[in-house]
Amino acid sequence: MSTITHGYAASISKGTLEPFEFDLGELGAEDVEIKVSHCGICHSDLSMLDNEWGMSAYPFVPGHEVTGTVTALGPQAKGLTIGQRVGVGWSAFSCLSCHECLSGNHHLCAQAQGTIVGRHGGFADRLRAQWPWVRPLPDALDPVSAGPLLCGGITVFAPLLMHSILPSSRVGIIGIGGLGHMALQFASKWGCEVHAFTTSDSKEAEARRLGAHFVHNTKQDGVLKKLAGSLDLIISTINVPLDIPGLLGTLSPKGRLHVVGAVLKPMPVPAFGLISGAKEISGSPTGSPTAISTMLDFSARHRIAPIIETFPMSKVNDALDHLRSGNARYRVVLVNDHA
Amino acid sequence: MSTITHGYAASISKGTLEPFEFDLGELGAEDVEIKVSHCGICHSDLSMLDNEWGMSAYPFVPGHEVTGTVTALGPQAKGLTIGQRVGVGWSAFSCLSCHECLSGNHHLCAQAQGTIVGRHGGFADRLRAQWPWVRPLPDALDPVSAGPLLCGGITVFAPLLMHSILPSSRVGIIGIGGLGHMALQFASKWGCEVHAFTTSDSKEAEARRLGAHFVHNTKQDGVLKKLAGSLDLIISTINVPLDIPGLLGTLSPKGRLHVVGAVLKPMPVPAFGLISGAKEISGSPTGSPTAISTMLDFSARHRIAPIIETFPMSKVNDALDHLRSGNARYRVVLVNDHA
Repeated sequence: MSTITHGYAASISKGTLEPFEFDLGELGAEDVEIKVSHCGICHSDLSMLDNEWGMSAYPFVPGHEVTGTVTALGPQAKGLTIGQRVGVGWSAFSCLSCHECLSGNHHLCAQAQGTIVGRHGGFADRLRAQWPWVRPLPDALDPVSAGPLLCGGITVFAPLLMHSILPSSRVGIIGIGGLGHMALQFASKWGCEVHAFTTSDSKEAEARRLGAHFVHNTKQDGVLKKLAGSLDLIISTINVPLDIPGLLGTLSPKGRLHVVGAVLKPMPVPAFGLISGAKEISGSPTGSPTAISTMLDFSARHRIAPIIETFPMSKVNDALDHLRSGNARYRVVLVNDHA
Repeated sequence: MSTITHGYAASISKGTLEPFEFDLGELGAEDVEIKVSHCGICHSDLSMLDNEWGMSAYPFVPGHEVTGTVTALGPQAKGLTIGQRVGVGWSAFSCLSCHECLSGNHHLCAQAQGTIVGRHGGFADRLRAQWPWVRPLPDALDPVSAGPLLCGGITVFAPLLMHSILPSSRVGIIGIGGLGHMALQFASKWGCEVHAFTTSDSKEAEARRLGAHFVHNTKQDGVLKKLAGSLDLIISTINVPLDIPGLLGTLSPKGRLHVVGAVLKPMPVPAFGLISGAKEISGSPTGSPTAISTMLDFSARHRIAPIIETFPMSKVNDALDHLRSGNARYRVVLVNDHA
């Protein structure tokens, strides 16, 4: 039994999205089929639409911050029930049998497949994903705003979890945008002393509302020097070149600069800047299935949610333009308005 | 009561060392005075002699891989007895009261003083150091060869300890030289699968004797690609630019590249190379007092020792020239032959 569904696809790189009917094919043994109610738009949807990473296939259906309900389960799809409220993020498949999958690091599986990489994503009525990647939504989470947690949210939450950051830590967040505005909430509710780094004074009040105890405008001279040796962790969410020596200087001994923003130009890292204070630079992609669920539970308990703007899915091109303009505050979510 | 001692000092940058009498002054409350029997020569003695780091003071007495016996103890010098066999490495003082000192990370104290930075080092009959930095030598360790453990040894041992490396790990060591030949022994006795990286086929047999299970000549094409995704930790001991993207590629997911070799040119680190496999780049200087003692105990239990060449201390300039030539195999130790 195959499923014909309706969605929105670009037929060429950077193309406009058009209504698109497609066949999801036979339901795989481990597949879950989801009726999509909402789908966030992530910057990586634009990167994939524009084929920036050279791995896009057309017709291309974006969308990997999906919320909805389970409509069908393959015979080997575990732990879910029909009608359950669920979410799907960046990943939709992993091999389940490699060292990383069997260690619980499914997101680091070499065979992992992105929800929109060689697959049709969530700008559609139906989405398919392998069962470990379909995460139950806690009751307290609103399906309208939960989508951006599933990709952007886990991306900035994972560093707190993977590095066992303690609530006694001083944490800097670089960039108050789609990722950073969630990172501020996570770090604040995690119990940390939170420092927001921005280049815009206009974002100070909002950064404080989101949990920042201190807001630093890095366009001002000497800002990083004043913080010398003080931060335990910095999470950089931006994709423009960083002042690496300056940021390493703000870290306490054994401090860590963690990047989730993918700057294309190599970062110039001074060896002495790592050696003298036993410091670290690291990075990470999204997170494992259990990390996603831990993040969802934490968000539910602490009422963490992205600040979103909604568009009907039928106005998807307007929504993409809005995100592209840089004016989105802070995440855009499509509400599926197809019958 | 002051102590006049005899040593060897350079009066100018890059100068020849000449016999030098100097007054160690009053013994400080926390000071330990040591009769120097042996002193290793480290590359950083040459860097300091040449004022490469702009922090040398002349007359300059090098030497920070000291072994000897305690001859005097200040009233607040704790845990040592007169006549005890001891060693001193890179550090000779820390404040003892800051967050790092009180946390056991004395080597990261902002007030820490190097044994040869603003102080006279171990190319002399007597050396003074603050008591936490004077470490008892286990009985099984030979004072002739123990000196290089105290700086070079702890530098490559510390990463295993600080990152809680497990014996099940696959560890790469870059460079089979003064540091690397000790790193191979540590990693091997730590129980790891050990990979030596060299640019010289002539060192393969020795690398295997030192504990390498695999030896890779990085001058050969495709060597790093064959190791793709396999190493948990790489310790780089060299101070020439590294193929950072290539090395990140050899790391397993969550793998770490740790640098102790101080390359002056910034390392070009691709953010994607860290993000995609959740990888890390870190660095560290020497180690804390307890780390040094842990390393000495481990060395004693596993019969780890540097391979050394000895010179009488009166021939110190010949010894320095030999190290400078790059032909030392692998550490040079001065035997104090002054009456």
